[in-house]
Amino acid sequence: MSENLYEQTCKSVSAVSDELLSAAQHKMDNKTKPLGALGQLESLAVQMCQIQQSLSPRIENKTLMVFAADHGISAEGVSAFPSEVTAQMVLNFLGGGAAINVLCRHHDIDIRIVDMGVSADLEPHSELIDKKIRRGTRNFAVEPAMTREEAIQAIEAGMSSFFDVYAQRPVQILGLGEMGIGNTTSASAIISAATGVSPEEATGRGTGIDDKGFQNKVAVIQKALDLHRPDTNDGLDILCKVGGFEIAGIAGAALAAASKGVAVVLDGVISTAAGLVAYLIRPEIGGYLISGHRSVEVGQVAALEMMSLNPVLELNMRLGEGTGAALTIDIVSAACRVMREMASFEEAGVSGQSE
Amino acid sequence: MSENLYEQTCKSVSAVSDELLSAAQHKMDNKTKPLGALGQLESLAVQMCQIQQSLSPRIENKTLMVFAADHGISAEGVSAFPSEVTAQMVLNFLGGGAAINVLCRHHDIDIRIVDMGVSADLEPHSELIDKKIRRGTRNFAVEPAMTREEAIQAIEAGMSSFFDVYAQRPVQILGLGEMGIGNTTSASAIISAATGVSPEEATGRGTGIDDKGFQNKVAVIQKALDLHRPDTNDGLDILCKVGGFEIAGIAGAALAAASKGVAVVLDGVISTAAGLVAYLIRPEIGGYLISGHRSVEVGQVAALEMMSLNPVLELNMRLGEGTGAALTIDIVSAACRVMREMASFEEAGVSGQSE
Repeated sequence: MSENLYEQTCKSVSAVSDELLSAAQHKMDNKTKPLGALGQLESLAVQMCQIQQSLSPRIENKTLMVFAADHGISAEGVSAFPSEVTAQMVLNFLGGGAAINVLCRHHDIDIRIVDMGVSADLEPHSELIDKKIRRGTRNFAVEPAMTREEAIQAIEAGMSSFFDVYAQRPVQILGLGEMGIGNTTSASAIISAATGVSPEEATGRGTGIDDKGFQNKVAVIQKALDLHRPDTNDGLDILCKVGGFEIAGIAGAALAAASKGVAVVLDGVISTAAGLVAYLIRPEIGGYLISGHRSVEVGQVAALEMMSLNPVLELNMRLGEGTGAALTIDIVSAACRVMREMASFEEAGVSGQSE
Repeated sequence: MSENLYEQTCKSVSAVSDELLSAAQHKMDNKTKPLGALGQLESLAVQMCQIQQSLSPRIENKTLMVFAADHGISAEGVSAFPSEVTAQMVLNFLGGGAAINVLCRHHDIDIRIVDMGVSADLEPHSELIDKKIRRGTRNFAVEPAMTREEAIQAIEAGMSSFFDVYAQRPVQILGLGEMGIGNTTSASAIISAATGVSPEEATGRGTGIDDKGFQNKVAVIQKALDLHRPDTNDGLDILCKVGGFEIAGIAGAALAAASKGVAVVLDGVISTAAGLVAYLIRPEIGGYLISGHRSVEVGQVAALEMMSLNPVLELNMRLGEGTGAALTIDIVSAACRVMREMASFEEAGVSGQSE
C-alpha cells in the first residue's frame, strides 16, 4: 500500500503537452508590445498555458507548504544556529510571525506547515500537518541519513499532505519551502551527488557560518559522499544517503502537485535540491517547475542548470521558508493575467512592428 | 509664477533623514531570520522607514503615472515602430488593454496617463491628464529638442499632475512609466551626456531595431551630442537639448513626489534617464528613488550607478510603460509588511545566531 502511493503518483506525472505551445506563443506575440518585450513574464505565461492546457491560464487558489525537519548532520557543527531553532521556527510559523507568514498574507496564499521530522513534540494545530517520520535524520557523516523505506515513507508523506490540501480546495499553484537547521549541508550534498560538481562548488554559507565553518562543511560533505557513494542517477539513493525528511516531503509534494496539473514553485537551494530529487525520480516533472529565487547559495546553480530552470527573482535572499516562492507565485499570477487580459494589436488598433 | 512651482518644488525636496536609520536596521536585524537573510527586502524596508520617518512603514495607496509624448528624433529612423503608435498606445492605456493596465489592476494601483506631447489630438478621458506642451519635441539631430522655457513648463506639468493626483488621494508610493516612440534614443543621449559613457555604451536596441538600425542610432546620438554639447552637470540643459516631454514630466513628478515624502519607483531605461535628470537638478531626491527593473537596455547601468541604485527585478523586460515599476511597487509593499508584521527573536521565543 505504501509502495503504491509512491509508484502511482510518480506514474501520474506526465510531461506538459506541447500541443498548445505554438498557439500560446502566437497569442503572446500578438499582444500590444514589441516581440518578447515582457521577457520572463511571457515565458511564465506560456508555461502556465501548457500546464493548464488552456490559452487563458488562471490562478485562483494558491498554497505554500513549509516542510520542517531536523538533521543528524548538525552534530558536525555545520550551522550557525542550534538545532532547537527548527522547532522554535515551526511555532513561529504557526503563530504567524515568520517572514513566510507575512509574504503569504500579503499575497493571499494559504500556508501549511508539515512536520516531517522535527526533534521535538509539537502540539496539534490547525495549520500543522503531522507526518513526523522520526526525530531528525541520522548523521550522514557516519551512516545513511535514512533507510530506503523511510525515504519512500517521507516522499509519500509529502504526497499525501499535498493531496489532502488539494482535496479541501484545489489550487493552481504550489509554493514549496522548508525549515531545518543543517539542511543546506544536505542540499549541497544532494546537488554535488546528482550533478557531479565538487562539494566545494556546491556549498555555501547557509545561515551564516564563517570561513572555518565553511571549510568544515565542505569536508563533512566530501567525507559523506566518499563514504556512501550515492548513485548519481538514483534520486532515492541520494536522498537516503545524504537527504533530509523535509527534502523528501518537498519532492513528494512536488510530484503530487504535478500529477494534478498544478504548477510548482521552488524556492532557494534546499527546495531546489528537493526538486532535483523529484526530477531524478520522474523527469517528466520538469515542465511544471518554476524556480522562484536565485539563492545566494552557489550550489543552486548546478541544480537549476540540470533542470533547465531560470529563477524569476534575485533579491539576494538566503532565508528559505518559501519566501522567494511566495513572491514569485504572485508574479506567475500576474503573467497569467497578462495572457488573459492584455489586448492584441488588432483589438487595440495599434500598428505593428516594421519588418 | 511658472518659474515658482519649479523652484519651490525642487527646494522642498529634502534628503531622507538618517535619524531612524540605525533604529530601523536594528529592528530588522532582530527579526526571526539570519542577519541580512531577506536581502533586498530588508534594504527596501529600511529605506521606506527613512522615507516615511517611521519604524512601521506602510503603503496604502499607490499610483502609477504613464507620461506620453512624441519625439522629433524619430524622423531619423531610430525606432522599429512608427510614431503613430504613441497615440495608439495611449488609447490602449485608456481602454485598459496594455500590459501596464493589467499589472496595475493586479496590484490595485491607480493609473493615470499624462499627455505631455503626443502628436495627435486625444479625446478627453477621466484617466487622461492633458499637459501637452507641443506635438512632439523638435528633432534633436538638427536643433535642441525643446527650449529652456518648454523644459521648465514640462517639468512643472509633471509636478502639477502629481500634486493633483495627490490632492485627490494621498499615496505612499509612485511608479513612473512612459510611452513615446523614439524615446530610448533620447534616454541614451541623456545618459551619455550626464555620465560620460560613450553613445555606443549607452545605446540599446529599443523596441527591436537590427544591427544597421543600431549603428544609425549610435551615430545619431553622437552627432547630436557633438552638435549641442550639453552641460554634463546641468539636468535642465541636457533635457532641453536631447530630452523628451514625457521624460521631463517624469522628472517633475518624481521631484513633486519626493517633496511630499512619497517613494518613487523608476522603471526601465527611459524612466531611469528621467530620474537622472531629476537627480542632477536636485540630488536630494536620491533617497526617495527605487529602481524597479534592470532593463535590457545597457545605458541604464551607468545611470543607476550614478544614483547608486540597484534594481529590484530583472525579468528581461524591455517594454517600459511602468511595467517593472508596477511589479516592484508590490514588492516594496511586501517589504513594509515584513518590517511591520514579522516577529522578533524575543517575541517568537527563537534562539539567536551563535557568535
